[in-house]
Amino acid sequence: MYIRNEDTICAPATVPGTGAISVIRVSGPEAHSIADKVIRCRRGNISDAKGYTIRFGTVLDGSENTIDEVLVSVFRAPHSYTGENSVEISCHASSFIVTSIMDLLYAAGARAAEPGEFTQRAYLNGKMDLAQAEAVADVIASQNAAAHRIAFKQMKGGFSSELKTMRGELLELVSLMELELDFSEEEVEFADRSRLDSLLDQITTHVSKLIDSFRLGNAIKNGVPVAIAGATNTGKSTLLNALLGEDRAIVSDVHGTTRDTIEETLNIGGVLFRFIDTAGLRETEEVVEKIGIERTFKKISEASIVLGMVDLTRDFDSTCDTVREIVSKVDFDTQKLVILLNKTDICEVNKNVNIVNFIVSSLENKSIANFVENSVCNLENLGNQSNGTTEIVPISAKTGSGIENLRQILAASQRDLLGDSDTTLVTNQRHVQALSDARTSLLRVREGLASGLPTDLAAQDIREAIYHLGSIVGEISTDEVLGNIFRNFCIGK
Amino acid sequence: MYIRNEDTICAPATVPGTGAISVIRVSGPEAHSIADKVIRCRRGNISDAKGYTIRFGTVLDGSENTIDEVLVSVFRAPHSYTGENSVEISCHASSFIVTSIMDLLYAAGARAAEPGEFTQRAYLNGKMDLAQAEAVADVIASQNAAAHRIAFKQMKGGFSSELKTMRGELLELVSLMELELDFSEEEVEFADRSRLDSLLDQITTHVSKLIDSFRLGNAIKNGVPVAIAGATNTGKSTLLNALLGEDRAIVSDVHGTTRDTIEETLNIGGVLFRFIDTAGLRETEEVVEKIGIERTFKKISEASIVLGMVDLTRDFDSTCDTVREIVSKVDFDTQKLVILLNKTDICEVNKNVNIVNFIVSSLENKSIANFVENSVCNLENLGNQSNGTTEIVPISAKTGSGIENLRQILAASQRDLLGDSDTTLVTNQRHVQALSDARTSLLRVREGLASGLPTDLAAQDIREAIYHLGSIVGEISTDEVLGNIFRNFCIGK
Repeated sequence: MYIRNEDTICAPATVPGTGAISVIRVSGPEAHSIADKVIRCRRGNISDAKGYTIRFGTVLDGSENTIDEVLVSVFRAPHSYTGENSVEISCHASSFIVTSIMDLLYAAGARAAEPGEFTQRAYLNGKMDLAQAEAVADVIASQNAAAHRIAFKQMKGGFSSELKTMRGELLELVSLMELELDFSEEEVEFADRSRLDSLLDQITTHVSKLIDSFRLGNAIKNGVPVAIAGATNTGKSTLLNALLGEDRAIVSDVHGTTRDTIEETLNIGGVLFRFIDTAGLRETEEVVEKIGIERTFKKISEASIVLGMVDLTRDFDSTCDTVREIVSKVDFDTQKLVILLNKTDICEVNKNVNIVNFIVSSLENKSIANFVENSVCNLENLGNQSNGTTEIVPISAKTGSGIENLRQILAASQRDLLGDSDTTLVTNQRHVQALSDARTSLLRVREGLASGLPTDLAAQDIREAIYHLGSIVGEISTDEVLGNIFRNFCIGK
Repeated sequence: MYIRNEDTICAPATVPGTGAISVIRVSGPEAHSIADKVIRCRRGNISDAKGYTIRFGTVLDGSENTIDEVLVSVFRAPHSYTGENSVEISCHASSFIVTSIMDLLYAAGARAAEPGEFTQRAYLNGKMDLAQAEAVADVIASQNAAAHRIAFKQMKGGFSSELKTMRGELLELVSLMELELDFSEEEVEFADRSRLDSLLDQITTHVSKLIDSFRLGNAIKNGVPVAIAGATNTGKSTLLNALLGEDRAIVSDVHGTTRDTIEETLNIGGVLFRFIDTAGLRETEEVVEKIGIERTFKKISEASIVLGMVDLTRDFDSTCDTVREIVSKVDFDTQKLVILLNKTDICEVNKNVNIVNFIVSSLENKSIANFVENSVCNLENLGNQSNGTTEIVPISAKTGSGIENLRQILAASQRDLLGDSDTTLVTNQRHVQALSDARTSLLRVREGLASGLPTDLAAQDIREAIYHLGSIVGEISTDEVLGNIFRNFCIGK
């Protein structure tokens, strides 16, 4: 059933560079005998070693010069990562040594592994399904607790088992329908139509929920998108630096994260935020600048959170224009707006009163308005005010005043991402596509059944849905349908 | 006898970054119990696992979230790198996972290891001596076969055993002398003075040889110094790029290599060469420039190989001045000179004849002169000419013509560095210093004995020499002297 690879592959498994230890992985039918050719162990051959044991050995080059003394971790099929015989050679982390050992492994019959080939073999050997294999890369790339938890759950098969349940239910249905077809001359109706309808509804809802989870799953994986909007030069860098604070070290600069140059990711309270700088907002007739502002509006519309920067020291009228513009672009049903009143360190109170009043009236938020009427003369007392989707936060990006407040607001807004809920979140575009295809098929089944479509056509659509769900974990579904029929019904035909 | 550390240390042992595997090392008396607190293994506690076996386990955080599934290599004292109980935790190479596991290890009672602390413990626990411990870093840093071989030999104790033999011989001598002192009332002369003299000579010669080997050892470790001399802008970068060719990837840029900004190291045929650009040579009265030229001469004098660049398209007289200057600064007894006739792609033959003739006359090398007389009209046929310490090599740094020739000349000039001779080469400044101190003491012994110095003073000087030799491997020598007396003589006193 499983496809076995004939050749033995090898590759360094640790990050290259000068350190204490480097690990070289070798996997395949000849892994042990190839290791024996390259490494001399005093206590007997690696081929004779038990799985899950370690041998101490010496690597010699062709001229009997010692390249290194190494520890060899021995794994025997199927109890290894790939499911094949394999060894992990732990050597001194010198590029000279690693290169020399790799050359000796090639000479002994191993070939260089392709990227991801060990995990691919684990999949081909049935150690994990496709969705789990895909999650391995996500586990490695995850930069924060939330993304790590989702990826790890998927790697351990949480998502796969959810899909398996759905496919099992659909298979049962289709098996009944196929049986009905086989016995069609006898005009037997095996499949319980009302149960079928309810099950279809249930699974379609489940699939839709998974599709919808992608927005959240993607936000966790790639960062919750936060658009910083406001006039030009309102101090985005200063704000980002202030937010970074002591956590500067965990600013993302990881390979593979798709982002353009004006994005910065930042881990706040275990959740990754992706800050998107936007072009300054202002009235213009200039074509290029107009395009920039259109792009800003697009980014604002894609963000989960919009930070509207207001410079308290600026001209009242232009500030009002900016605020009006931002407020008009925010979808308060799906997005959160945080108005940042920046430069509290040097603000003038009278001017602030006007701006804050204007913002409050723009937001038409009575509770905030009430508060502001009572306390706006003293901005220090304003604190942050929230009506759920909007908050007004006085800050000084320069002195850091109010920044901790903002951090907490951002973290709190995504607190649900951190709960260890059992909800599956889809984070992979391929999976969303397959789920969408499955939903399309399922909707067609429902329509077809409602309009009296022949059972065999409906069964075909269900098979398609099963196929799409199965494609996520990499299984071939037609065999599975047949297998399910024979196993569950065994009518000796 | 060995100093045991009370606390348990941990540190990532692989290069940080995103890869397949990261390894975290834990060592100390509580290594196994701390690992048990952090890692849950289905097949029993790590504390109960045999040495040289691997356990599969799960790392959970305080909230029972799975951080990772890991492989734990278990080592039991004294059969580990440090000689202590230790484990190596192999996890997914994600900085989030590594940081999380480190935090859990800290919480469980381990502390962060200092740089080199695992090797320091290996030394303190008697797994290796100081010289071997020092060589571990050299093994990791070695960038080529020759440097690797020296470092590896030293790590395996080749140098240490040589020192041990010398110290053993000196200890025998000093023991005899001390015995003579103890029985001085009986006027017995145990130590055979002529044998003592010959042994002293022999050991002093050996120590001097080791001191002298530093020039070569250092060249192998830090690169054979090659000075590039010639007029300004003769194309040093072009030459280096041409030399690099397809090996560009192995240009050295390793941390810890001490070099100033105008040095480049390059691995040619397994030997590291350190190319030192020098200020352009020309007549000048300008003070600052004079200092630069003085520095050039110093660098030329320190180099093992001098590449004298001649631009064939330049003015004949100034070229002759440059060549004369270079030739006058080279010490042909210890240095090799290679005259590079650059720009063969655009050279004019007549001009070349004059320059080559001038060079040949400067070198007063008849064999080259003969060759040049016969073939200088056709530079393509000139090839490279050698009189052992000097070669003339026509090249075009731009087109790469003649460069392979130069590479082979450079590699061949240092071929002895690559032979697997058993000669020990000292590569460490501390060791050279200790050897020099030992030699000073030994010379004082010889002088003292010749001038009839009392035996106890001579014995004191030998003890000093033993101390200095012992300091290389980190041993305390007075205990050793006493130990040797009691063991070898057992006179029941």
